[in-house]
Amino acid sequence: MALMAAVLALPIFAQHSFDNSLMPQPANLSTETGALIIARRLRVSLDSAHDPLLERAAHRMIFRLERQTSLQLDHAFDDDGRPSIRIRVADHEIQRPAEGVDESYTLDVHDGAATLRASTDFGALHGMETLLQLVQQEPQDYAVPAVHIEDAPRFPWRGLLLDPGRHFLPVSNVLRTLDAMAAVKMNVLHWHLTEDQGFRIESKRFPKLQELGSDGQYYTQDEVRQVVAYAADRGIRVVPEFDMPGHSTTWLIGYPELASKPGPYHVERTNGIKDAAMDPTRESTYRFLDSFIEEMTCLFPDEYIHIGGDESSGKDWLGNPQIVRFMQKHNMNKTSELQAYFNAIVQRVLVKHHRRMVGWDEILQPDLSSDVVVQNWHGIEFLVDAARQGHRGILSKPFYLDHNYSASDMYAADPIPSTDKLTPAQEKLILGGEACMWGEQVDSSTADSRIWPRTASVAERLWSPASIRDPQDMYRRLAVMSRRLDGLGVTHVSNPERGFRQITEGNASALELFASVVQPVDMGQRSKEQHTSPLTPMTNVVDFTVFDPLSREVFAQQVAVYLQSSRVLDGRQHAAARALLEQTFNSWSAAASQLSVQSATNRRLASIAARQNQWLELATLGLQSMALIESRQSPSDAWIISQQALIKSCAQSQELVDFVVLAPLGDLVKATSRASAN
Amino acid sequence: MALMAAVLALPIFAQHSFDNSLMPQPANLSTETGALIIARRLRVSLDSAHDPLLERAAHRMIFRLERQTSLQLDHAFDDDGRPSIRIRVADHEIQRPAEGVDESYTLDVHDGAATLRASTDFGALHGMETLLQLVQQEPQDYAVPAVHIEDAPRFPWRGLLLDPGRHFLPVSNVLRTLDAMAAVKMNVLHWHLTEDQGFRIESKRFPKLQELGSDGQYYTQDEVRQVVAYAADRGIRVVPEFDMPGHSTTWLIGYPELASKPGPYHVERTNGIKDAAMDPTRESTYRFLDSFIEEMTCLFPDEYIHIGGDESSGKDWLGNPQIVRFMQKHNMNKTSELQAYFNAIVQRVLVKHHRRMVGWDEILQPDLSSDVVVQNWHGIEFLVDAARQGHRGILSKPFYLDHNYSASDMYAADPIPSTDKLTPAQEKLILGGEACMWGEQVDSSTADSRIWPRTASVAERLWSPASIRDPQDMYRRLAVMSRRLDGLGVTHVSNPERGFRQITEGNASALELFASVVQPVDMGQRSKEQHTSPLTPMTNVVDFTVFDPLSREVFAQQVAVYLQSSRVLDGRQHAAARALLEQTFNSWSAAASQLSVQSATNRRLASIAARQNQWLELATLGLQSMALIESRQSPSDAWIISQQALIKSCAQSQELVDFVVLAPLGDLVKATSRASAN
Repeated sequence: MALMAAVLALPIFAQHSFDNSLMPQPANLSTETGALIIARRLRVSLDSAHDPLLERAAHRMIFRLERQTSLQLDHAFDDDGRPSIRIRVADHEIQRPAEGVDESYTLDVHDGAATLRASTDFGALHGMETLLQLVQQEPQDYAVPAVHIEDAPRFPWRGLLLDPGRHFLPVSNVLRTLDAMAAVKMNVLHWHLTEDQGFRIESKRFPKLQELGSDGQYYTQDEVRQVVAYAADRGIRVVPEFDMPGHSTTWLIGYPELASKPGPYHVERTNGIKDAAMDPTRESTYRFLDSFIEEMTCLFPDEYIHIGGDESSGKDWLGNPQIVRFMQKHNMNKTSELQAYFNAIVQRVLVKHHRRMVGWDEILQPDLSSDVVVQNWHGIEFLVDAARQGHRGILSKPFYLDHNYSASDMYAADPIPSTDKLTPAQEKLILGGEACMWGEQVDSSTADSRIWPRTASVAERLWSPASIRDPQDMYRRLAVMSRRLDGLGVTHVSNPERGFRQITEGNASALELFASVVQPVDMGQRSKEQHTSPLTPMTNVVDFTVFDPLSREVFAQQVAVYLQSSRVLDGRQHAAARALLEQTFNSWSAAASQLSVQSATNRRLASIAARQNQWLELATLGLQSMALIESRQSPSDAWIISQQALIKSCAQSQELVDFVVLAPLGDLVKATSRASAN
Repeated sequence: MALMAAVLALPIFAQHSFDNSLMPQPANLSTETGALIIARRLRVSLDSAHDPLLERAAHRMIFRLERQTSLQLDHAFDDDGRPSIRIRVADHEIQRPAEGVDESYTLDVHDGAATLRASTDFGALHGMETLLQLVQQEPQDYAVPAVHIEDAPRFPWRGLLLDPGRHFLPVSNVLRTLDAMAAVKMNVLHWHLTEDQGFRIESKRFPKLQELGSDGQYYTQDEVRQVVAYAADRGIRVVPEFDMPGHSTTWLIGYPELASKPGPYHVERTNGIKDAAMDPTRESTYRFLDSFIEEMTCLFPDEYIHIGGDESSGKDWLGNPQIVRFMQKHNMNKTSELQAYFNAIVQRVLVKHHRRMVGWDEILQPDLSSDVVVQNWHGIEFLVDAARQGHRGILSKPFYLDHNYSASDMYAADPIPSTDKLTPAQEKLILGGEACMWGEQVDSSTADSRIWPRTASVAERLWSPASIRDPQDMYRRLAVMSRRLDGLGVTHVSNPERGFRQITEGNASALELFASVVQPVDMGQRSKEQHTSPLTPMTNVVDFTVFDPLSREVFAQQVAVYLQSSRVLDGRQHAAARALLEQTFNSWSAAASQLSVQSATNRRLASIAARQNQWLELATLGLQSMALIESRQSPSDAWIISQQALIKSCAQSQELVDFVVLAPLGDLVKATSRASAN
């Protein structure tokens, strides 16, 4: 990874007087001349009426400035006339992030002073993140360039789902994720707390939930309070999900009276859709849920509770004669109708406890209360449909982080597609979206590297105007954002590096370079190639590779610049581009050879032996293509056919990792013919 | 760091059938032929009477085996006759680590089975760490070689001091330190909880201690219980230190009635010896301490409490007429006598609460109860003296981790020097030692990299027989141990790497190589060159360099091998050694040039500009010396003088970092004359 980072820093990101690397991009930005120098004499001042939340945030901002600059700064907040950052918030009453809270801010930076204004603390928090992102290294100083920014989010719901159900994520993992979310102005943590594989939250009323359903891995109520408070301090709402009536095996272990079948139940050790389900026909089920929800509302102040509702097979219902009789009696032909019945009662329970309901696509049934928010995972057309039916909704499917979507794929997925033909009122029903880090194939050492930096592209899609959509500029800023997140303590860089050191017993450079040309296979494909379960150790090569590595775009650019320069016959630019690309292919060759030596005595490296051989061939393909292009010799048909066959065979899935460099290599091969034709 | 690791792995550690990389080395080890293969079918079995502590430990061992091998293993503990690791503990009653508990174990590995026997769980814990260290990568498998080990510690007190007083260390930091300590068989966490700069533990009886004395950075009692339980699970005792009567500013902020002067007091923002002290003449002081100690004994079950007692200036006592009168009345001529009076009463308080006292050297005054343990920091001669006087003691001074002691320095420091002439009974009074990570110049992102891997050499000194003392073999194993600790989640590698990425905005390779040739200046020197305080941001280049980097020994070996091979005229070995060393010097040159380019626009890199220039000159010195040696040309006197002057000037302290490569470079220069004389 260190190698990639070094490569990244060189060719693309030249130093400018104002290098706009903000992410997400603000709604409106204009630059002026001058800068605010970050120096020891800097003073951050708060308005005199400031509240503790804002003061804590200002402390954190100064602490981050200090770490970024190694300068010791003042932590006093009165305005003493010195060079300053003035923070002014109009309304100090709103102390809890909630749907619809005003998140806008303006930021004015002139020589010697910056002024951040916001209606609420939550706008000010976003403004502080922007300010921190504006700090640039200058030859002698650190400086914030003079700008005028007026900013507000496009969507009010900008979420990230964490799934400790499949693999537990310790509190420290959740906290650093909240730091990262705040840095990209996301505002909803969707916490998927219950699953067939684990019940991850302590209930004092029903302690057998966590005692029998979690293998000892659950959040205590103290920890939940800590997370909720930490999130609120960063302007982030926490929406808990208690999945029902399906995905509910771990409820039923300690409380089999909730179940549709007699049991006994045990913590699921495999992934996939299970048949276990709550019995929706019994009053006692709802009494239990009523009491449980009441207990949870003491922990989660947010207005929303997510009840899941997805992937309920209905099989256990149809296998229970009493439930079948109930369905007949109520003229229900399908289990989805029974689920709608269940949802309606659960919704009344939520309303009783002053909570609004969120659920996955499956809850969208006729007669669903328009108060319910539908989380879309079946495809955006369902979201658009729901909006037409008057339902509020949030988009998730294109943002599934266990899939091999690139940052630019996710960036291009707009929650309001331009083709939708919704009325403005209907468009307003689309609240935003959520990136979803499902937990089947990640654990706490790898989750960060699947979430970040990709999710920053989702954050920008949900915050910035729809018109901001240039993927290349996004990738440029994503690389900077990745480094900022690294500095915040996110482990998306450090943990894969650690993993590669562990696998190679300290000799990781070749493996790190390999990781720059591959990504994990998509979630579904991995389930086929390897029967993963929650017990599978997540320490193989695939686990430390990442989707859409930043190196992918860097390589694509290298090839594009090389090919372009070879066409326009710009001698000096071409020589530089040629040298860089040759160096890349030579480093691939050397690393592939090195890896094959290491693999002879390394079981985990041996598991990617075929990919190593292909990589070596791809390096040769690259060098040969370049030689042909340079010499303007015509390649033989046989050569072209063999290279195309190589690329095709490299595109076949195997050994759990996919190459991410094949398209530019295909361009190179294609260019050999064109070059000779010139 | 990645570069260094790669270099480390190549030349020194060839693969053998049994590569003894155990650290600490066991008391007795014999090898046999064969191995236990770690495979899916492996079964860990516990004796039927096993207790929860042992079961948790076995789970952790299996989990680590799984992560190390990526194999999914069974977590059931019955013996089903399959290839197995059998763990048998004689006495399941002892569930808390305490001084004197039997920590011995035997481990027998044959083909197909390993048997670990111990008297107590705590011996078994050590045996499991040994077993994990024995796992080797084989071409097709992971295997534990057949061995017979009989092992027990040489000293019963093998400690590490953490000082959250100066820079707070979050619980997660403490927990990963406990994991690391257990991995090297250390058994005492000395937790320095109170300081002039921070009172870091919650008292419910005297809440103003933490409320006014900690800037909000303290361990809650829940967290303390978590740490103590986590430690106990790993066989580690927690000895809390409440420093008194000096180093006590933060007690006096909320409770000025304890003080020798009227106050007011505030949290100290600078380091050094302060005059604030408790008033030893008032009964109320002891009533307060009695109550406080009583509260603390509920949190800390260990038999020992450390009362500090160091660096009490006595000035505030002499400035208080009432205290001066008290001294006169009791015929005390020196403040040390008043401190002895204080200590005697505090000791009675401890005894009342069934606790024994530990204190620093200064508490050793005439009439000190022989029950008290003296922690030595003034020099080993005082420890030996104390033993002659019948006091038990522990050695610390040579193990101060904020000093620039190398791992081999610390390794050579024996708590029982061979020259001491103590009787066997007196030798027994020396309980062991403690590595001390004082917190003035480290924070939670850098503490790990100052503690590890160096402290593993202290751990071995305290565990293994005195006869095991070859520094080169120690360094060979230390490099392996460093990787193991990295795998456990210790951040001694990852956090400096992150720091270098942050400083260089992602282009860290040159800076990483620079970090391989330097170390921070010694603690005292840094205090002179830079007026550090607890508020100084610890994110400068110096903060991410480490004492005695492993690369130092690697470079020394490279030069030694090169010079040796040039003397013995072994052509092939010499060519290889020459190529390697030339490559090293060329990489220095390239990196030094790269750094100077980067420094032009980077304030923090510019702060090491002089060192970069010197580094470039040292690379040239190396290459020129080699050219002379190879050509057997006689160097001019002027050249020799200038090179010696260069080395001398490089040895001068500046820019907060010292070179660690000067001695071998001096050898090279010296060898130029010898070569030409041949």
